[in-house]
Order: sequence, then C-alpha cells, then structure tokens
Amino acid sequence: MGKQIRLNAFDMNSAMHNSHGLWKHPGNQRHRYKELSYWVELAQLLERGKFDALFLADVVGVYDVYKQSFDPAVRDAVQVPVNDPALIIPAMAYATKHLSFAVTVTTTYEHPYAHARRMSTLDHLTQGRLAWNIVTSYLPSAAKNFGLDGMLDHDERYERADEFLEVVYKLWEASWDDDAVVRDVKNKIYTDPGKVHEINHEGKFYRVPGPHLSEPSPQRTPVVYQAGSSEKGREFAAKHAECVFVGASNVETLRFYVQDIRRKAAAYGRNPDHIKMFMGLNVIAGDTRQEAQGKFEEYSRLWSVDAALAQYGGSSGYDLDAYDPLEFLEYKPTNHGQTTAAHFTKYAEKKLTVGEVKQKIGTIGGRGTVLVGTPADIADQMQHWVEETGIDGFNLAHFITPGSLQEFIDNVIPELQNRGIYKTEYEEGTLREKLFGQGQSKLPEDHPGAKVRRQSVNQH
Amino acid sequence: MGKQIRLNAFDMNSAMHNSHGLWKHPGNQRHRYKELSYWVELAQLLERGKFDALFLADVVGVYDVYKQSFDPAVRDAVQVPVNDPALIIPAMAYATKHLSFAVTVTTTYEHPYAHARRMSTLDHLTQGRLAWNIVTSYLPSAAKNFGLDGMLDHDERYERADEFLEVVYKLWEASWDDDAVVRDVKNKIYTDPGKVHEINHEGKFYRVPGPHLSEPSPQRTPVVYQAGSSEKGREFAAKHAECVFVGASNVETLRFYVQDIRRKAAAYGRNPDHIKMFMGLNVIAGDTRQEAQGKFEEYSRLWSVDAALAQYGGSSGYDLDAYDPLEFLEYKPTNHGQTTAAHFTKYAEKKLTVGEVKQKIGTIGGRGTVLVGTPADIADQMQHWVEETGIDGFNLAHFITPGSLQEFIDNVIPELQNRGIYKTEYEEGTLREKLFGQGQSKLPEDHPGAKVRRQSVNQH
Repeated sequence: MGKQIRLNAFDMNSAMHNSHGLWKHPGNQRHRYKELSYWVELAQLLERGKFDALFLADVVGVYDVYKQSFDPAVRDAVQVPVNDPALIIPAMAYATKHLSFAVTVTTTYEHPYAHARRMSTLDHLTQGRLAWNIVTSYLPSAAKNFGLDGMLDHDERYERADEFLEVVYKLWEASWDDDAVVRDVKNKIYTDPGKVHEINHEGKFYRVPGPHLSEPSPQRTPVVYQAGSSEKGREFAAKHAECVFVGASNVETLRFYVQDIRRKAAAYGRNPDHIKMFMGLNVIAGDTRQEAQGKFEEYSRLWSVDAALAQYGGSSGYDLDAYDPLEFLEYKPTNHGQTTAAHFTKYAEKKLTVGEVKQKIGTIGGRGTVLVGTPADIADQMQHWVEETGIDGFNLAHFITPGSLQEFIDNVIPELQNRGIYKTEYEEGTLREKLFGQGQSKLPEDHPGAKVRRQSVNQH
Repeated sequence: MGKQIRLNAFDMNSAMHNSHGLWKHPGNQRHRYKELSYWVELAQLLERGKFDALFLADVVGVYDVYKQSFDPAVRDAVQVPVNDPALIIPAMAYATKHLSFAVTVTTTYEHPYAHARRMSTLDHLTQGRLAWNIVTSYLPSAAKNFGLDGMLDHDERYERADEFLEVVYKLWEASWDDDAVVRDVKNKIYTDPGKVHEINHEGKFYRVPGPHLSEPSPQRTPVVYQAGSSEKGREFAAKHAECVFVGASNVETLRFYVQDIRRKAAAYGRNPDHIKMFMGLNVIAGDTRQEAQGKFEEYSRLWSVDAALAQYGGSSGYDLDAYDPLEFLEYKPTNHGQTTAAHFTKYAEKKLTVGEVKQKIGTIGGRGTVLVGTPADIADQMQHWVEETGIDGFNLAHFITPGSLQEFIDNVIPELQNRGIYKTEYEEGTLREKLFGQGQSKLPEDHPGAKVRRQSVNQH
C-alpha cells in the first residue's frame, strides 16, 4: 500500500473563491453560499468522499489594487461579497461526524483574547475537528478598515503574529489544567480554582493577564495550518504549522519548499514528520480525456481575465494595469502576500513582458496546477506529485460547486482507493489524532505551543 | 383576545448562567453546554413552545471583584467557563424554522468592521432571525485582557458604543444597495460596482472607509436589543433599541422605566410602539402550589450565596465582602453595570445593612422576580405584570436546563394560549416582521440606523 494521500477541500464563505468568472456557469450553485443548507450539503458530500477537512480561506477587505479600484473585483465577485468563515462551521459539524474544518483567521486585526475563546468554542462544538489557518492578511483595504493608515510591514505582521501565537498558546495550553473542571457535588466545586491559572502575558503588542474563558477543549490548540512559500512564510510554517499549504508550479520548486520547511522545522527542534504538506490542486475529470478536455474548454470560455488580475493585484501588490504591456517586469518587494510575490519573481527571472504575464495569470491554471483527464490520469498525476515532492496531500479547489467536488468524489476517489493510496474509512478521534495517530489529540511536546505549558499541566 | 405576550428564553453559552449553585441539581443538563446537540435540542424545545427568541447573554472576563479573587466564581461556575455565544447559533438555526436568536456582543472590545460582517453572516444564515444585544461590558477583568489598564469610564463606554453603532449602521444600511447583486450573466456582472458604496466614516474612535464585506442580509441591521435600567442605559435604549430588557422588582418602578423609555424614544422622534419591553422572569410551576413550593425549597437548598455575591460583585462593582456586615450601605457610582448599581441604590435608600443586603442578594429571587405556583397562578401573575406596567413580554430565565423550560412549555404555555394571550402559531418572516408586522424586515424610518441610508437606498 502506497503513502496515504490527504485531502482538504479548499473553499471560502464567499460568492466566489478562485474560479474567476465561473459564477456564470449554469451548473454553479455557488450563489447559495448564504444558505446553511448549501454548506451542510457540501459537508456531507465531503464526508462521503472521506475528505480530511474543509479548508475555509478568508479576506477582510476588498481587492482594490488592480486598476486602483474595487470595481473589477466587485463586478466579477472576486472574493466579495465575503461572509465570516467561522459561522458556517457549527451547522456543518452538527451534520457530520468525521469531517474537520480549517478556518482562516487573521492575527493582524483580531484580538488574541477573543480569538482564543472562539477557537476553543469551535473545538468543543466540533469535538476536536478544528484547525486554524493563520494569516497575517495581505489586503491594504483591510488595514484601512481596521483603523490603520496602511498595511503593516510584512515583517512586522509576522512579528505580531508570533506574539499573538504566544498569547493564544498560553491561553489554550497553560491556563486550565486538564482536571480543573471536577463537578464535585459533594464538595460543591464545579471547577477547582487552584487549577485555573492566569497567564500574565506582557509583550510588545499584547498584555493579557488571563485566565482563559473556556475550559480545555479536546485538542486545546486547534491543529495549526499555515500557507506561505516566501522565505518568512516557510520560517513561520516550520516553527508553528502542523499542516502547510505550499504552492508551486513545478516539481522541483515544490520539492525544495517541502524539504526546506522540514529542514527548518528540524532546526527548531521539531520532528519534520509532525508537519503535513498540502499542495493546491485543480482537477477536471471526465470518463474520457475528450470529455475532460471539453469541460476545460467550457470553463475557459467563461473564465474572467479581469477577475484573475484583480485577485492577483490584491494578493501580490502589483497592479498589472499600471504597466506598459511591452515592458519587462522587475521584481520589487511589496507588503502584500510574499507567496504571490515569489511567484512573480519567477516571471521576472524569465524575462516576460507585462503583457505575457497578464496572459499567463489570466488563464485557467495561471495561478495553480490543473489536472485534466480520466480518473486514472488524475490519480497518476497525483501520485507523481506525491512521490516526486514529498507532499502529503492536496488542497483541492473547484471550478464550480458542488459540481467539481461531486465529480471528483464519484470518479477520482474510487480510483485512489482502488490503488490503496486513499482511506476507505475515517480514523476515529480528533483531527490531530486522524492526522498523527490515536492518542495525539494535543500538541506534541516538540511544538512551541507545548513549551508554554505549566509543569503541572505537563504532568497530566 | 388580550395583549399578546412575547417570550425570550434567557440563557448563556456557559457552564452556568444565573441559577447560582444549581449545577449541583441532578436534573440539570447544563454541563452539556459544550455540545451542539444540547443547543439543538434546546432550540427545538423553544420552537415547540413558540418562543420568539433565545437570548444569549455573554461576558468576556471573569468575576473577580467579590473577595478580590476569581476563586468564588470559578469554584461555583459563575458564568465561567464561558464560550462564544455566536457560534452556537448556526446549528440551532439549521434545526429550526421560526425561533430567533439574540446574541450579546460588546461594543467596547470588538471592532465594528469585523462585527458588522459577523452579524450580516448570521442574519443571512438564519434568514433574518437575528437580534444583537448591545452591551458595553461591566467586568474590569475583561478590560485588562483586552489590553486596557482598567475599565473605561461608564460614560465613555457609551460614547464609544454610540460611534460603534454609527459605523455598523452605515455598513449595514448605506454600503450596498438592495439591488447591487444582479448576477447578470449576459453582461458579466455579478455585483454592480456602482451600487456598492464606501461609507468613509471618520470619528473619534473609529476610521472605517468601507465598503461592507457582506451583501445585504434579510434584515440588514439585526433587531437591536439592549438591557439597562440606569439613566444612561434608558437613554441609549430609547435611542437605539427595538427590544429592551428592563429589570425591576416592583410594578411601580417597572412601569416608570417602561413609560420613561417610551417617553424618551418619542423625544428622539421615534414611535414609542417601535420598542418592545421585556421583563426578566423566573418561574417554578407545579400541578399544585405545594408541588411548586417543594421545587422552590429544593432549589433553595442547593442555592449558592457565594456565587450570587460573586456575580453581584462583578456586575455592580461592589465587593460586599469588604464591608462590615453591620455597616449601612452608601451608594457610590461605579464604572460597572449601572443597572445593578441602581438596584443597589434602592438598598441604600432603604437603610439596609451590608449583612441584610448580602442575605437578600444571596437568596433565590434576590436579583429578579420569581413566580411560584400552578400554571394558572403563573399566568395570572404574568398578565398582572403586563397589564400594570405596559411591558410586552418576558425574558424567561431557568433554574435548571432544559427542565425549567420544559416544565414551562408543557404547562404554562397551554394556559397562556387558552387565555388567548399567547400565539399558537408563529408569524411568517424575519424576526423584525414577527415583532412588528409583515413587510417590516428593515429598520423603520424613525430609527437612527435608518437615518444613515443613502438617498438611493431609500428609494428602493
């Protein structure tokens, strides 16, 4: 039996995620994102497909870099309107048993004290099926709406994120002992106050005495997700993440990222196997190659270049409309998503003109890998990526919902299962147990979140 | 047919709400507050009882004023552990059709931009069954955990709340036109950018350019709830609230509050009937008076004086442990809950000693009205309060859950229905429509939230 492939569905509580312009496809149910029934049906579909998790992206601003306006993004529903991702999870959790949920929350604009309670609440309600995808937010419009003059410097966002994590680790891991809640009727003690501790955090950005408001949840710290292939991003992932979303358009680069993150993790004293790596993937499957190709062409006809460039503008900081199409690109660091900027470097290195870059980015697959073919073709390719790069699985995006996922689950999943590289039953337990083994609900000892534990907590 | 009585169940996503010490009751299912199934069953029960809403209180700190320690609160589960209230709503909304949800969120520690999106998301997901209970937070421990040296002055909290409301009203009412989202495939327009507006708010506390991230939800602004019987609280309620939670221990005071708020509302140019008033109520019903009295005595035996005093300490600012029991009380304004402080004034005026006050507060009914008797007795009393004070309904607390509510729904509700003073079927529509009539999903024109609307929005 080959290495087991892990799968997340990559989605967003928004009118559109990254399938630019495909809201126009008659089979797309996407506009129902405002209805609980839409999400419950999706969750049940994913559970039928034995997906590990639904990964919910988020932004807290509009994309207004491209053409210096939010008009292109608004017109084509480029991640706007966008609703809160955490609030769709409880209904999905109630309607499923095993599917987990990775929710994106920014460390730049939320406060750690309120955030820690939200995550603990969700970890309780999902019975330990929660992951938190940490982002520092790349949109300047978000910064302005949270009262800043402009975006914090990329490095300062990460510095703040580091301290934010320190605070929430302390609240989750060091405030309530495992056996604090006793419900001892005879001695009239619900919670033993001697086992609830202040954390007394005083740092550069935050001062939080504690205690935490929530009692310990099944995983305490939700499984830590992180995305980002920039140098700083890989460093951060190596230190904190348990699941990393890595993006690259070729095997060599991705292999480098995977190995580099594992190497960096080891340098932090972590077991490199305590990190699962996921690659972004788009799939178009058909009974025949011709059928699959037909769908690809159908999607291409509906694709929106402007939407893709609007998304690229906000995430990279580059307004490609502001350049002469014949100009050669020069890489300049921006305060935006360094992953996207890294992607951009590649184009700069290749000496592409702005016009050529726009064309690339504006095409399906311009920003991620697309596999088109029969279920066997898809499975071959997926195995190839896993074997060649050392990744553990994929964040599966969609073109239309729930259509793309339905197609994948009905056709590709059985193929993967037949090859013995995909589970036919879920493991029991929390998400962390499902990923790292029974009895592993809590952060492993080599994780920085475990280092803040009190001695008394360690002893339990 | 008499005036129709409105009912909210008054609860909290916490190990205990206000039934001090009753976690020890063997029939109390309260410790299941961490499970979605607990809340879903509760919601279905309330919907069977045709309750208007589940009103979820909240605190974002621990009660540590009494005895200058959080030990008494923690030991007796006085609103701690406490989880996030918003996150239990989606699963309950999915499992019900008519029950609405009033969620407490503080204006002091949340940011209006993120808060506005959370409320819009919930209003979408519940299809317009959402109310927001506005609080400014009375616990000093909360202030410290959100990075302040101590609590903001009571008046400054209200000043901040006023501006917070201005921001969220603009986001909800003035950012997206009703017909902004068109999903026009032919012209490739999902949302018409000309109908999405910045709000460009610049104030003393907040700078928010907008636009709002969510498209218009069924009610846009959730139904505005507010509690508070202090002078400032009544002023705020008169200006903003559509449902007010008023507390008083006798008919005369409550009647004064009700009339005063309506009078003040009229002075703000609002129709006084656009505000529904709810009185806090505890009920113990039995087939016979003896049976009901027996339950009252059972609860009294399990009641915790220390828990009651801990709750009182945090909400009023008075540590009654710090006084000589024989001392007479003198009212001093505090930065805490002015409602509780007002309650306290009453004791001071009556020339009670600290010992006497502690005894009163530490008893069942010391902080609210308790009705004990047969369903007919209860219904008589409820009618009496409604007729004598002009209130519209009750926020029904519980002693044990779901037991107290079950008992009420099985026995008292039919009695109220037989008397023609309680609905036998829900009205259709959003919460605002259920409260104020069909077609009234949006804020009425006389509400300050409606004043911020753009002309073009008014025209739709």
